[in-house]
Amino acid sequence: MSTQQTFTLAVVGGDGIGPEVTVEALKVLDAVSANYGVTFQRTEYDLGAKRWHATGETLPDAELEEIRRHDAILLGAVGDPTVPSGVLERGLLLKLRFALDHYVNLRPSKIYPSVGSPLANPGEVDFVVVREGTEGPYVGNGGALRVGTPAEIATEVSVNTAYGVERVVRDAFARAQARPRKKLTLVHKNNVLVHAGHLWKRTVDAVATEFPEITVDYLHVDAATIFLVTDPARFDVIVTDNLFGDIITDLAAAISGGIGLAASGNINPDKTAPSMFEPVHGSAPDIAGQQKADPTAAILSTALLCDHLGLTEAAAAIEAAVTADIEERTGAARTTAEIGDAIAKRAAG
Amino acid sequence: MSTQQTFTLAVVGGDGIGPEVTVEALKVLDAVSANYGVTFQRTEYDLGAKRWHATGETLPDAELEEIRRHDAILLGAVGDPTVPSGVLERGLLLKLRFALDHYVNLRPSKIYPSVGSPLANPGEVDFVVVREGTEGPYVGNGGALRVGTPAEIATEVSVNTAYGVERVVRDAFARAQARPRKKLTLVHKNNVLVHAGHLWKRTVDAVATEFPEITVDYLHVDAATIFLVTDPARFDVIVTDNLFGDIITDLAAAISGGIGLAASGNINPDKTAPSMFEPVHGSAPDIAGQQKADPTAAILSTALLCDHLGLTEAAAAIEAAVTADIEERTGAARTTAEIGDAIAKRAAG
Ligand SMILES: CC(C)[C@H](C(=O)O)[C@@H](O)C(=O)O
Ligand SMILES: CC(C)[C@H](C(=O)O)[C@@H](O)C(=O)O
Repeated sequence: MSTQQTFTLAVVGGDGIGPEVTVEALKVLDAVSANYGVTFQRTEYDLGAKRWHATGETLPDAELEEIRRHDAILLGAVGDPTVPSGVLERGLLLKLRFALDHYVNLRPSKIYPSVGSPLANPGEVDFVVVREGTEGPYVGNGGALRVGTPAEIATEVSVNTAYGVERVVRDAFARAQARPRKKLTLVHKNNVLVHAGHLWKRTVDAVATEFPEITVDYLHVDAATIFLVTDPARFDVIVTDNLFGDIITDLAAAISGGIGLAASGNINPDKTAPSMFEPVHGSAPDIAGQQKADPTAAILSTALLCDHLGLTEAAAAIEAAVTADIEERTGAARTTAEIGDAIAKRAAG
Repeated sequence: MSTQQTFTLAVVGGDGIGPEVTVEALKVLDAVSANYGVTFQRTEYDLGAKRWHATGETLPDAELEEIRRHDAILLGAVGDPTVPSGVLERGLLLKLRFALDHYVNLRPSKIYPSVGSPLANPGEVDFVVVREGTEGPYVGNGGALRVGTPAEIATEVSVNTAYGVERVVRDAFARAQARPRKKLTLVHKNNVLVHAGHLWKRTVDAVATEFPEITVDYLHVDAATIFLVTDPARFDVIVTDNLFGDIITDLAAAISGGIGLAASGNINPDKTAPSMFEPVHGSAPDIAGQQKADPTAAILSTALLCDHLGLTEAAAAIEAAVTADIEERTGAARTTAEIGDAIAKRAAG
């Protein structure tokens, strides 16, 4: 018996190295999906700096609605120095995350022995950060008065709701339950941000009663950065707010083989809208178009994508191909396409 | 000719290891000041967890006004698990920082070769973070509605003013100007926190025109954590907001010899109120009262204190004594008092 499955995929290459790494990610996805009777029907969306310069548009609502009708989204990277800071981030990337209710921003970290780490003795690192994706200081509820005068005042409001915190905390507990170590660490700053922090802490304490097997602890975000460099092996699942998650996942990527390997999923666990997969790294305009970027993070993001769509074997095949490739890295320079080719070949089997 | 100077010093040992490390800091301060004809007239303030449990008070206004009449403040650490999170931090530590207008929170980081670093190849690290101390998400302008119900909403407001940003940015530029490398890095997240971020960026750009010798760059806070583990030697002076400064200075301490060495000054550069000096570390209740804490950070904080009071030779003597002690550390365990004694002896000369 053979089944044939088709998924629709919206592709946003974006800016800088985004398009380059996306090409390689799609190459690998195609190589693998063929083996599992899966087809990805792709639509490319020309969004990012070029489009904004040409039309002034970031993400028109009609296009958002088109994208919404897909099964998943693959995104390269967004942001360019020629565009005022924030325009593409708020108008495109965050608009997608918020409009499609990506409340779980999933960011795994793993140290591959062959890649090494800037840490002298990292230990065995294998944890995942569940970063909240639709609240916190990212909501854009700030403003400014008397801009450009000595009396200027600018505010940024972090919004946190029981609704928003509970659903992401539940997701994190479920993920911890499925992992062998069954440990969950809440990262916040509840000794200063007392209102938001206490809501997070109370929610974790309440949900914990339903997961008696999970060991729960709490760290202030400043202390968490210390442990990420002195004892990262202690972490299993970390749950945290949008901004703290942004900060600690870049640090997590840096200690575990670098930002070139860090994948992420912007997940809507309720599947009321498509989830979006992207590398943690930015658009790196300084090396764009030079085939210097490592596409591994984008490729690993397609493994998260497959996993989310229930294609667990395909996901495992991509991960295995990446692991095998990483294990044989010698430090010799390869182009973006060469890395993609090598991983695609392995993934095809 | 001999001059005799007397300074009044308010001492707040605080919680956990705070009192222990403060004793050693004062020991060193006494040993050094004797050599320079300086006397510190001390008043101890019993503030922290014990006081709160006994009286429900954190920092009564009358006591704040008494403390305000001193020339400087030495603080150990504040916070205890028996007190609801935030009560002592907001009611005591942050109350002091805000009421005394400590708008420059100065946190130097240096790698001592003999101490080592969790990083495999840290390079020559010697930078200082100028953390804003009176604005940002620390202002406490948040709140919560319908607490404990499924409809709870909690907000935290980051407040940033041209007044507040400009003064700390000017201070940071002046410090960069006085250092050999003359480099300043603004750390923020202006692609997401656009209102506050643009105020910071515009202010740095404007003040930069008055300091043509300074090389200025900008990093998003997430990227800054990456560089702090991959290339910390690139930093000279970092200027950043209250929350980002909290996070990156713990990370900075961790990569450079650990939190046991990180000193800080909460400085009121205009001297309209006394400045306050404290180690970056917390109260570490798990090792309190056991003579296990390293008092070096508290001792180095007295060097910053002397520097602020114009006692530059005394400051240099304390720093030299600490450096000499650190260079001879063998890894053998010493008690808190033993470390304090050893440094005091060297500092006395
Ligand atoms: C580009 C930026 C808006 C984004 C974020 O802050 O979330 C990025 O840093 C990330 O982590 O995905
Ligand atoms: C104790 C806490 C309120 C404080 C802060 O967040 O500023 C501490 O972490 C610090 O860095 O001095």
